[in-house]
Amino acid sequence: MIRVAVLGATGYAARELIALLLRHPEVQITALTTRQEDQPHLGDVHPTLRGRLDMQLQNLTTAEVAHSADCIFCCLPHAASAAVVSELLAADCRVVDFSADYRLNDADVYSQWYGVTHPDADRLGKVPYGLPELYREQLQGARLVANPGCYPTAAILALAPLLKSGAISPEGIVIDAKSGVSGAGRSAKAHLHFPEANENLLPYGVGTHRHTPEIDQVLSNYAGVTTDVVFTPHLVPMDRGELITAYANPGATNSGNDGLQTEELLAILRQHYADEQFIRVIEGIPGTKSVAGTNYCDITVRRVRGKVIVISAIDNLIKGASGAAVQNFNLMYGFEESAGL
Amino acid sequence: MIRVAVLGATGYAARELIALLLRHPEVQITALTTRQEDQPHLGDVHPTLRGRLDMQLQNLTTAEVAHSADCIFCCLPHAASAAVVSELLAADCRVVDFSADYRLNDADVYSQWYGVTHPDADRLGKVPYGLPELYREQLQGARLVANPGCYPTAAILALAPLLKSGAISPEGIVIDAKSGVSGAGRSAKAHLHFPEANENLLPYGVGTHRHTPEIDQVLSNYAGVTTDVVFTPHLVPMDRGELITAYANPGATNSGNDGLQTEELLAILRQHYADEQFIRVIEGIPGTKSVAGTNYCDITVRRVRGKVIVISAIDNLIKGASGAAVQNFNLMYGFEESAGL
Amino acid sequence: MIRVAVLGATGYAARELIALLLRHPEVQITALTTRQEDQPHLGDVHPTLRGRLDMQLQNLTTAEVAHSADCIFCCLPHAASAAVVSELLAADCRVVDFSADYRLNDADVYSQWYGVTHPDADRLGKVPYGLPELYREQLQGARLVANPGCYPTAAILALAPLLKSGAISPEGIVIDAKSGVSGAGRSAKAHLHFPEANENLLPYGVGTHRHTPEIDQVLSNYAGVTTDVVFTPHLVPMDRGELITAYANPGATNSGNDGLQTEELLAILRQHYADEQFIRVIEGIPGTKSVAGTNYCDITVRRVRGKVIVISAIDNLIKGASGAAVQNFNLMYGFEESAGL
Amino acid sequence: MIRVAVLGATGYAARELIALLLRHPEVQITALTTRQEDQPHLGDVHPTLRGRLDMQLQNLTTAEVAHSADCIFCCLPHAASAAVVSELLAADCRVVDFSADYRLNDADVYSQWYGVTHPDADRLGKVPYGLPELYREQLQGARLVANPGCYPTAAILALAPLLKSGAISPEGIVIDAKSGVSGAGRSAKAHLHFPEANENLLPYGVGTHRHTPEIDQVLSNYAGVTTDVVFTPHLVPMDRGELITAYANPGATNSGNDGLQTEELLAILRQHYADEQFIRVIEGIPGTKSVAGTNYCDITVRRVRGKVIVISAIDNLIKGASGAAVQNFNLMYGFEESAGL
Repeated sequence: MIRVAVLGATGYAARELIALLLRHPEVQITALTTRQEDQPHLGDVHPTLRGRLDMQLQNLTTAEVAHSADCIFCCLPHAASAAVVSELLAADCRVVDFSADYRLNDADVYSQWYGVTHPDADRLGKVPYGLPELYREQLQGARLVANPGCYPTAAILALAPLLKSGAISPEGIVIDAKSGVSGAGRSAKAHLHFPEANENLLPYGVGTHRHTPEIDQVLSNYAGVTTDVVFTPHLVPMDRGELITAYANPGATNSGNDGLQTEELLAILRQHYADEQFIRVIEGIPGTKSVAGTNYCDITVRRVRGKVIVISAIDNLIKGASGAAVQNFNLMYGFEESAGL
Repeated sequence: MIRVAVLGATGYAARELIALLLRHPEVQITALTTRQEDQPHLGDVHPTLRGRLDMQLQNLTTAEVAHSADCIFCCLPHAASAAVVSELLAADCRVVDFSADYRLNDADVYSQWYGVTHPDADRLGKVPYGLPELYREQLQGARLVANPGCYPTAAILALAPLLKSGAISPEGIVIDAKSGVSGAGRSAKAHLHFPEANENLLPYGVGTHRHTPEIDQVLSNYAGVTTDVVFTPHLVPMDRGELITAYANPGATNSGNDGLQTEELLAILRQHYADEQFIRVIEGIPGTKSVAGTNYCDITVRRVRGKVIVISAIDNLIKGASGAAVQNFNLMYGFEESAGL
Repeated sequence: MIRVAVLGATGYAARELIALLLRHPEVQITALTTRQEDQPHLGDVHPTLRGRLDMQLQNLTTAEVAHSADCIFCCLPHAASAAVVSELLAADCRVVDFSADYRLNDADVYSQWYGVTHPDADRLGKVPYGLPELYREQLQGARLVANPGCYPTAAILALAPLLKSGAISPEGIVIDAKSGVSGAGRSAKAHLHFPEANENLLPYGVGTHRHTPEIDQVLSNYAGVTTDVVFTPHLVPMDRGELITAYANPGATNSGNDGLQTEELLAILRQHYADEQFIRVIEGIPGTKSVAGTNYCDITVRRVRGKVIVISAIDNLIKGASGAAVQNFNLMYGFEESAGL
Repeated sequence: MIRVAVLGATGYAARELIALLLRHPEVQITALTTRQEDQPHLGDVHPTLRGRLDMQLQNLTTAEVAHSADCIFCCLPHAASAAVVSELLAADCRVVDFSADYRLNDADVYSQWYGVTHPDADRLGKVPYGLPELYREQLQGARLVANPGCYPTAAILALAPLLKSGAISPEGIVIDAKSGVSGAGRSAKAHLHFPEANENLLPYGVGTHRHTPEIDQVLSNYAGVTTDVVFTPHLVPMDRGELITAYANPGATNSGNDGLQTEELLAILRQHYADEQFIRVIEGIPGTKSVAGTNYCDITVRRVRGKVIVISAIDNLIKGASGAAVQNFNLMYGFEESAGL
């Protein structure tokens, strides 16, 4: 049994993570932390977990956390996370980091998009990116994993195989993304107040969303090209689920002038993901409801006029956060990749 | 043209009120106030009203308000409201008060339920209650009107005629109420955060909701009885609309041992509201969607086993707040009762 | 491994059931049936299950079903179900019946509420009612179980202990129930069309809902009294979750004139359910979201004025259908009661 | 007073239209039709209109309609509509046609996308397209107007000024569109059943939606270019509201190599719509809720990396259907353009 702790256990991704860990045959949860001064019971913080784990959230020092657990799931805000993670690694813990701190390879790009100096810049570029479908070998046995952002997960899984195969061009990629409101976190904010967010479809972060450089970096590195994606997220009046509709130009290596057609594009995806248990390449159209509550990513592709349209759907809290974390944890420890999922 | 001001113009009821007033042929809006320090433009506070009225919200003194307008719609919190209202009346303004301050007749009951000493207790018991269908004569020409609570509006319109006619007993009345989330106001709160309130049906204020004494007082005074209602509101994952399902015992004056049946009960309601343009007594079942965006109250009644079930539906922001206010305003000034509605 | 079949596998309860069975360590799904002529793949009928079970739904005869499985989960409509169930029992299968066919003890009551003559009337009164918290002993080793209705589950779990203890009176019980739309089934109907049901709170089946006699029978038998409940369900614009707000008069055996107060009432519930892993008696207020996706029933009770208010919440598709079925299955076969849940 | 009839009065657009017409000072509704055999009362078909107009829907011949009204709002399905419209025009009625029948100029394109031969092909190309902000002069005094599709309205209003000014290129335009479910009509369908559509974000009609040629034709004709838009609509779990996020390449006539930036692009829109009362060009981000229930179209534009992103929002049932129809009606008869709106 691996003793695990969850740092910053009050959020939605942490709630889903705890629910998954409670079902995992090789895991014992030994600590949950919060920075709130009172030390609330898990069942009061997450009523849906009432009766499943009799444990209080505590204000623990990093040393106390390191003492109590072998593997730490760190759900702290960016910058705060890296400061803790480096200490945990020094204390010989393993870590799955939910923040963006170890996703970008370049400290300057990090500073530019996150507005702070990186607290552990030396480690950047050496931490595997927690997308098993792309980087499984690097994740096996890893001591620290950078758990991906939700939008990058959906976008990269959709686009990476087509980009690498040359079926789409790296230039002019548009990613129109839609997410349920849980993706915006648990803090009550004016625009997320029910009567504001309900019955509202609202673009946000147009041209400024922090997942942009993450998508560019991973797509570019994986496919050996340089992308410059235009990424526009939208808030959808639903709890969970995320869908991206990506528009790309046909790639240079395409057969003939017109590029690949729908069937050929589907074949590339099917072949790429043939052995992946959590990727479902489908002929129909993905919708968020078909993946809600699961670790699946549904993907399809269409050739429409001069564009290739790739559509993918995930549950932002599971495949986009906690499920991916458990999948990475399993790879780190050599467990069955689907354990707990 | 009557010059009107809206005090506390940032909330949802104020937004709906302004939309109605902009359509009213006899009204000119001359001032909107807020206690926020910046003086935001109406279109920024309520984007749906953008382009309809080019006016900033201001921080005005009561004297400035009194100078700028003939009639004041006061959407301030309880206690704060009465303090301002008494000054406005002294300055010869007329007032429609949205707060609970002038609804209850007894200052002690007010203190008990609202937790503060009433700032204008001498006036209690002399202010007409703004339910035109019950108190039209008192409202005609009034200088101050206590605009009713949303739940009391739906509950009283449903129960008052049956109670007055003796068709139901004053003892043991249960009012199970359901409301859209806009009824909880515009301030972002943890339990009203979209991912919390969405897909959730949640009772609240069980046994403690402040509309309880208001319902008891009005029902009792109107019907000449003493009620002791049990009132349980529930939050429903929708924007607007309010429905009450009331359960009463058949009344003593009922014909025969078993009391009146559905058809006789419907006849009482139909007769009572025969001349009311905003009350629709229906044979079918009211739902909130049929009244959303309107000033209507839909009502039906059924005899089921030993109980009389009365169901009514309103739009909490219109018939339950702003629409009633405009209806009252029309009675105060002698305009057509439906003007602007 | 028990070989199981699901008859009528296209509905929502069947979908949830299959998801639970796929996680059950002692179960192998061997057949899924439908009366649709084409034999669709499970993943096309329930896209969320795509990739989890590679099986087509088939049109099987009862004999074929009996041949392929040891235990049958029968999700057929009432009347159709009993006809099949009696054959399955004759073929030595065990059955969990989701329909209402074996819930009522009296064939006349059945005919009156369901409008048909019971096809297997001799068996009525001999089939255990599948509420483990009340009838565990009868369910252990049973060959046929009548899986309860969703509303009866929530209502009976809330009221039965209080009724049996004499804390509430059997007379004048009102059950105001609220359900997400999945409770109305999967067939597209005009009033369940999204733009009709969304943003709508709608009472239905007022005084006529078929769960009324089921609630009366079970409450009366269990507590040794005679109830005559008034039951009013409401459709709530959300997927899943069911909450009942029940109003009862204090019982005759109550201490003093005024009856038991909140703390004493809570103590009765806590004691009654002390050993039950799926019942959470809480001091706070149950909401549907806290039980969604789980087999839990959250319950609380309040004394308010002259009434006792009992509130309970379940997931209508799990504790109100498929989860209860798996719990019953576990009792029938002597597995751990929470297996698969 | 103009006598008006509404043909096919059971749908959502017709419901909104009737509500608007009831407020119009120059209109008298003289007939409502349906092809349903019973002749239901308007209040039963559209409960929200109960009490506002005491009229039955009737099965009228075209001659009867022509006799009863001066102007006909025709809400019939495509092909069925043109057959009736040509008769109504022959009988000297004026017509606002909600169908797609007179929107496309080319009978072959119509056949290709709508799958039928056009019943009144000679009139194609001579009917003004009912977008007053682009074609006001042609609409003034018109006898027949082709009321635009909802998606084309939002898309064309956003893109046309930028395209005409050369700020964006006609090549490679992507229109990612999102709509509330009322846009799919009132017929209950499996994928629009509440438990299917709720909590679901679902692309549909990818590459095949019939609004594609309509958008291309109007954009191309208005701007004197040739577009080949890629149009992808998505179903959003909300009642009403439509938002398009359009991605275009900077145009050839742009200043410098990099093209116009956000401020310059906004200036083009502001100047173009300076005199338009129903277009609100905003610096912030449009959301559907800000336009719900109104005839407004909110638009903004951003330069992001290599793309120009244009975002617009309308209420699909009002500016996207009934409101536009009333605006067109006002132009046909010379009334104030905002009458009834």
